[in-house]
Formats: sequence, C-alpha cells, structure tokens
Amino acid sequence: MQLVTELLGGNRRALARLITLVENGDPLKNEILQSLYPHTGKAYVIGITGAPGSGKSSLVDRLLQEMRGAGLTVGVVAVDPNSPFTGGAILGDRIRMQDHALDRGVFIRSMGTRGSLGGLSRATRETIQLLDAFGKDLILVETVGVGQSEVDIVKTADTTVVVLTPAGGDSVQTLKAGIMEIADIFVINKADLPGTERAAAEVSAMLDLKSCCDWRPPVVPAVSTRGEGIGALWQSVQEHREYLEKSGRLLEIRKERISRELTEQVEHLVKTMVWEKIKVRMTLGSLVEEIALRRRDPYSAARELLAQIEFPVP
Amino acid sequence: MQLVTELLGGNRRALARLITLVENGDPLKNEILQSLYPHTGKAYVIGITGAPGSGKSSLVDRLLQEMRGAGLTVGVVAVDPNSPFTGGAILGDRIRMQDHALDRGVFIRSMGTRGSLGGLSRATRETIQLLDAFGKDLILVETVGVGQSEVDIVKTADTTVVVLTPAGGDSVQTLKAGIMEIADIFVINKADLPGTERAAAEVSAMLDLKSCCDWRPPVVPAVSTRGEGIGALWQSVQEHREYLEKSGRLLEIRKERISRELTEQVEHLVKTMVWEKIKVRMTLGSLVEEIALRRRDPYSAARELLAQIEFPVP
Repeated sequence: MQLVTELLGGNRRALARLITLVENGDPLKNEILQSLYPHTGKAYVIGITGAPGSGKSSLVDRLLQEMRGAGLTVGVVAVDPNSPFTGGAILGDRIRMQDHALDRGVFIRSMGTRGSLGGLSRATRETIQLLDAFGKDLILVETVGVGQSEVDIVKTADTTVVVLTPAGGDSVQTLKAGIMEIADIFVINKADLPGTERAAAEVSAMLDLKSCCDWRPPVVPAVSTRGEGIGALWQSVQEHREYLEKSGRLLEIRKERISRELTEQVEHLVKTMVWEKIKVRMTLGSLVEEIALRRRDPYSAARELLAQIEFPVP
Repeated sequence: MQLVTELLGGNRRALARLITLVENGDPLKNEILQSLYPHTGKAYVIGITGAPGSGKSSLVDRLLQEMRGAGLTVGVVAVDPNSPFTGGAILGDRIRMQDHALDRGVFIRSMGTRGSLGGLSRATRETIQLLDAFGKDLILVETVGVGQSEVDIVKTADTTVVVLTPAGGDSVQTLKAGIMEIADIFVINKADLPGTERAAAEVSAMLDLKSCCDWRPPVVPAVSTRGEGIGALWQSVQEHREYLEKSGRLLEIRKERISRELTEQVEHLVKTMVWEKIKVRMTLGSLVEEIALRRRDPYSAARELLAQIEFPVP
C-alpha cells in the first residue's frame, strides 16, 4: 500500500491520513496495522492523566520541550473521552500545534468520541502503533480526567504520570483506587499554591500503605506554567524506564498488552463473523418485539439465534 | 430456584442475595435473569447524573421522599464508576440507608468497580431487572460524574436528569456533547448561589441549537438541601413519562435497549465459547512471545487461532 510505504519513509501527511483511516475503521485498517506491525515496538509510551484544570496541558508542553532538547522525537496523542471531536486540532491543541508546527520532530493528534470508550482506547492504541512505526522515539498519551475511562486508556503506557494539584477538587482525598494503582509517578502541579506539602505528604502516606513492588512512585512538585519541576519529572520518567528495562518488567508489561490486543482481535473477528451470518439469515425486529412483550427473554433468544447459524453453544 | 421464588414473594433478603450473585457473575446468573424476565418491564427507570459536589445525593434523597409520598415504591442503584467498592452501603449511602432503613418501600444498592466500565453498566442493568421483577414502581439510577462512563450507564434509563450547579467547575461551559444529548431534564441545583440565572440561560441557549425532537428538556432550579424545586422536578419527570408513553417513544426506547441487550448476550455467549475452545487446545504464551519479538503480528495470529478451532473467518 502506497500510504504505508510513505509513512515508513517519513511522510507526515501519510501518517495523518493513515491515522484517520484507522480511526474511521476503514476496511483496509487491519491490513495497514498488520503491515506496519514489524516496525513497531521501538517507541517508549508515556501516559499523562489529570483532572481538567490541573495544568496538564502546559505540563505536557514543557515536557515536550525537555524531550526535544534531549534530541528525541515525540508523538503526542491528546485524548478527551468527553469530547465529540476528533482529528487534527481542537481547543488548546490548536495553540500547541502552532508552537510546534515548524518542528518536524513533533507530531500531535487529538482524539475524542461520541462513541464507546472501548472504541476510543482501541483507536488510541492503534494511533500509538502508527506513531511508533513512523519512528517517534517517545509517545505521550495525554488524557483528561481521572476516571475509569482514563485508567483504561492509560493502560497502553509504559510509564504513567498522574497530575494532581494542591487545590480541593482533584486533591488526594478524591483520588480513586484505580488511579493510585496505575501511577508510576505523581506530579503535584501548581506547587506555588498553599497546600502543596500536605498534598505530597498525603500521597506519600497512601504509598506507604502499598506493600507491593520494587518501584515506589516519586512525588514531583512542579509549576508547569513557569517550567519548574519539569527537569525533575523528565528525570523520573527516565529512571522509571531504566527500572522497567533492567528488571525485565518492561517486557512483561508489553506482553500483557499484546495478550490483551490478541484477545480483542480474536473477539472482534468472531463478533464480526457471527453478526454477518445472523444478519444474512434473519431480521431481529420481530424477536425484539416478542422480548419487549415478555413473551420471550433475551437469554434464550440469544441461544436460539446462535443455534440457527449453527454456532455451537453449550 | 428457591431464591427466585422468594424474591417474587417480596423477600428483601432474597433480592439482596440475588443482586450479589448476579454481580459476581455466578454460574446461575443467566438462569436467574431468564426466570425473572417475564416479571420485568413494569418499573419506570430514572437516571440521575451530575458531577461530584453537585448535590446529587441530597437531590435523590428528596426526590425519593416525594415519590414515597405519592405512594410509589422505589429502588435506588447508586453507581460510582471510580469506586472499587460494591455491595450494601458505602460512604454517604450509609446515612441514606439509615434514613430509609425502616421503609420497606425503598431498596438502596451501591455499585462500584475496579473492572471495566462495560462490566459496570451490565451489572447496573441486571440489578435494575432484579428490582423491576421485585416489583418496585420506580428505579432511580444515580451516577457520579458527567463523562462517557455515565452516558453509557444512563442509557438504561427512561428519563435522564442531569444535575448542574451555577458554580464554575461543572457549569454549562464544561458540559460535553454526550451529556447534552442524553438529558431529558436539567436541574440547576444550589440555585441560591449567584449565577443560577446565567447557567439556566446558557442551557436554554444550547437547547435552542438543537433542532430535533418534540420534547424540550425543562430547566428546573432547585436547592436540594432545603427541598426547594423537588416538587417541580418530580412534576417534570412525570410529564416526560407521559410524553414518552403517549408518543410511543417509550416502547421505542425500550426496544432499542432490548436490542442492545440481545446483541450483548449473543456476543457474550460467543466469546465464552470461543475462549473455552481455544484454551482447551493451546496456551497463548509462546504466541504472545513471538508477537512481542515482532516475528508475528496480532492480526494474523488472531486469524490462525480461530482457524485452529475451525471457526470460519473470511
């Protein structure tokens, strides 16, 4: 495929177009991802999540500068599970893209959805693969919020940074278990505000309760608008990467991810097949009608549908 | 099954135990839901969603009183997608359960998860079915937050109430498209705070942009801590129900829901079957290893797995 060859040759426009094709579930999607797969696995993926207003975007911007300063190329995937917009540039990203528009070492992509979260985390993963095949050294995945949706998306990252602020709304008190578990590094942003030390102490206290693991997430104070603490954050990211590589954890994490991807791919194929078969043979309208009238139930109806396409159900 | 008979006989303990069985994915789960299905479809389901701190819980409490005053029985499912806790009583619900502990017309259940959102919305739907079969007239589904996760959960409701406040954090500005689309009624809670009129005007302006539909979501100001506006909210809920019933929309909505449930049930059965077969014949470890080394790719590997269990893939 022409576009694939162009992407591998470093053509940014081909990259952008392939991301769009993959996002839109183009019929050629699997073929594209399959042919690029041998070229993936080199990029290191860093997830950054934090509540709206935690100054996450400016943190990512500063971190980006730090990484570029170290001579590394960077892809950014900015994910907003609540935004219906997807594509090139939205909101703040417009400004950010201007900043980096002339820098060919940076590629920024925004993603949002009206659809399911499953669809969004899948699209995020696939975009990461394209950026990886394109040859980016680092990929930053930025997600808004600290809910389950973000946990799912961030599972794609090798290192996960959780951004907090000393202020009330998104303080440690409201931190949910899911986020505590995925954080490899904590940033207390807006560390010029009162309450920073207390917030840091609270995170430390929570970490003390965790008995597990060799890596203790560091707590990095930062003032991203002034660029303070960004060097320390970048240092922590590198240390975490080193830890993962030396301990063999990186390979483990990536195998777990591949295992999830393989599972998803199998289920995707199976579902597609089954529905194709079912839809050739029957329309579901009357069945739904019968269930609505409580003359039937969806549990036995599902079995019957599968029996009709000769799918063996126990 | 003894517990099913007991639930249908009005035994609260049987209800609570069956919810737990279903939540935990007990092997008898499908059998339970199937035998209760003919007894469902009578309850009216009201979804209430709003950001943390919007006073949603006290609103639900007051609404509950209003509904009980009208002589209706109520089931409450309090869902927190970010909470790892599930079961009887958590946090604020402890207090609420005390308030209603002696009222046999009310049944409250909290749900949370560390797992997938898909799992949570499924468990919510199934709990609603149990409460429905138990004979509750109304079921309130309360979810924290205004993200995609809540949108998915709220899809189970006949009427959806979105709770806003005049204050900055969760104001109309930050309202995402997904939430605008699912709201049947807006509540501006904490309406004694400044900015209420502006917030209401902003919502109205957004609604003006929506060209569609016969039902225009009303905007109800309330001060839930003092019980103000609760009568008007209850009135709006009843009007919306009437609209849905008279226009035939209610049947449509419920058929769409059944269609989704049937789809999920088919896919669930198929996935279970396929993985049982795959796991009998092979272990995936070495395949994952090969993919990790980029000697293979997950797309062709998924096809091969299915070929090995003789599942016909195009």
